[in-house]
Amino acid sequence: MPVYRMVISYDGASFHGFARQPGVPTVQQRLEEGLSKILGGELPLSVAGRTDAGVHALGQVVSFTREEAIEDAEALIRSLNALCGPDIAVFEIAQAPEGFDARFSASSRTYEYAIFTREVPDPFSRHTTWHVPQNLDLDAMSKAAQALLGEHDFSSFGRVAEGQSPVRRIEEINIEETENLILIRITANSFIQQMVRSIVGTLVKVGSGKIDPGSMDEILHARDRSAAGAVAPPQGLFLVSVSYPEDLV
Amino acid sequence: MPVYRMVISYDGASFHGFARQPGVPTVQQRLEEGLSKILGGELPLSVAGRTDAGVHALGQVVSFTREEAIEDAEALIRSLNALCGPDIAVFEIAQAPEGFDARFSASSRTYEYAIFTREVPDPFSRHTTWHVPQNLDLDAMSKAAQALLGEHDFSSFGRVAEGQSPVRRIEEINIEETENLILIRITANSFIQQMVRSIVGTLVKVGSGKIDPGSMDEILHARDRSAAGAVAPPQGLFLVSVSYPEDLV
Repeated sequence: MPVYRMVISYDGASFHGFARQPGVPTVQQRLEEGLSKILGGELPLSVAGRTDAGVHALGQVVSFTREEAIEDAEALIRSLNALCGPDIAVFEIAQAPEGFDARFSASSRTYEYAIFTREVPDPFSRHTTWHVPQNLDLDAMSKAAQALLGEHDFSSFGRVAEGQSPVRRIEEINIEETENLILIRITANSFIQQMVRSIVGTLVKVGSGKIDPGSMDEILHARDRSAAGAVAPPQGLFLVSVSYPEDLV
Repeated sequence: MPVYRMVISYDGASFHGFARQPGVPTVQQRLEEGLSKILGGELPLSVAGRTDAGVHALGQVVSFTREEAIEDAEALIRSLNALCGPDIAVFEIAQAPEGFDARFSASSRTYEYAIFTREVPDPFSRHTTWHVPQNLDLDAMSKAAQALLGEHDFSSFGRVAEGQSPVRRIEEINIEETENLILIRITANSFIQQMVRSIVGTLVKVGSGKIDPGSMDEILHARDRSAAGAVAPPQGLFLVSVSYPEDLV
């Protein structure tokens, strides 16, 4: 059965996250209803990153299977954008290699978190950044972030469902500042729930001098959420991109 | 009596424009109420650009007079931002030279209009751009814009109140494209109502081949709104900055 891979972007503000939940608007519901209306039948989606309520996506990947081939992908993109927009945009729909699954085939996910540090707030970035009106020590934050690289039990930095492993592998953390905007970019094989926001909340405490950069190791090994800083708010977080093994692209 | 000059930014989406109107939220009302709550008394504002409903500002200038001097401008900025935010931000409050008036002293205003041209819409710029999903001919638009430079009767491009002159002087029009974003920047001594959006609507018709760039002169001299293109939507328009004579800054 042909598998289709879709790349989408969405403004998370009006959704209770990606995954369907009864009685509240979700990205999955909006997209599945759009697809079903245009193509007919039920087309359940698999998704690379189950973003939480209020979290945005620039390059989210979803997949679905369908017995009949889709002949005009461009027309489908236009129809979906007309039906599912304006807070969701579909960029790409293409047939994927057999066995492709947006969630299970993904080799890594990259998230970016944006912090706006100017004292005077900015009306235009309030929906896409966390406003932390103070200077943050980027060197201390970068030093602290190094302790998180590699494979660890991330129980201190997020939630797992019963029976789920809290072990993940962070491949890269990069922290950059341009004018009043700090971008924290994290790539991992996958993430447990609230992991990026929990790491960001902790790094901001490091940057403001409330946590010593040297104590990140200790926080990580505590395997206890109370050891880390508070979870950063959702509107600064973006799922930027998802990587797949070469033979599946 | 001391005159104070305030520089502000606002997201126009939730306001029925700058100027007070009964029964609807306006920037003026929000700011005047904030000032009055903090400083006491009534402090009517003069404004450089009376932006319409939905139009944004990056560097709007307002002024007010007050018998007593303001001692701690930084504290006033913080209080105003806490009271009037998050869709309004106050950057600067400073005493201005005697005789300064944000509206009557202004020598020119600069507006910028943003057009997003990619076919697939962008969930993140839909509140700050006009989505025109097609390639526009920038050379034709720039050529057409030249006809508008200088002093003209702009009746074809906007509304004037009875008794008001429709003559304005456009000092500069600049059109630039970066990736899928076209920015049209216009500086004039002042603008009649809807003038920038009416010019932009007409330039987009030129860019899409519906109006010949050579016919701008004719449209201008018709002094008739039906000669020009439709008014572009408000969310792409920003009042960027206001200039004053050197002795008043």
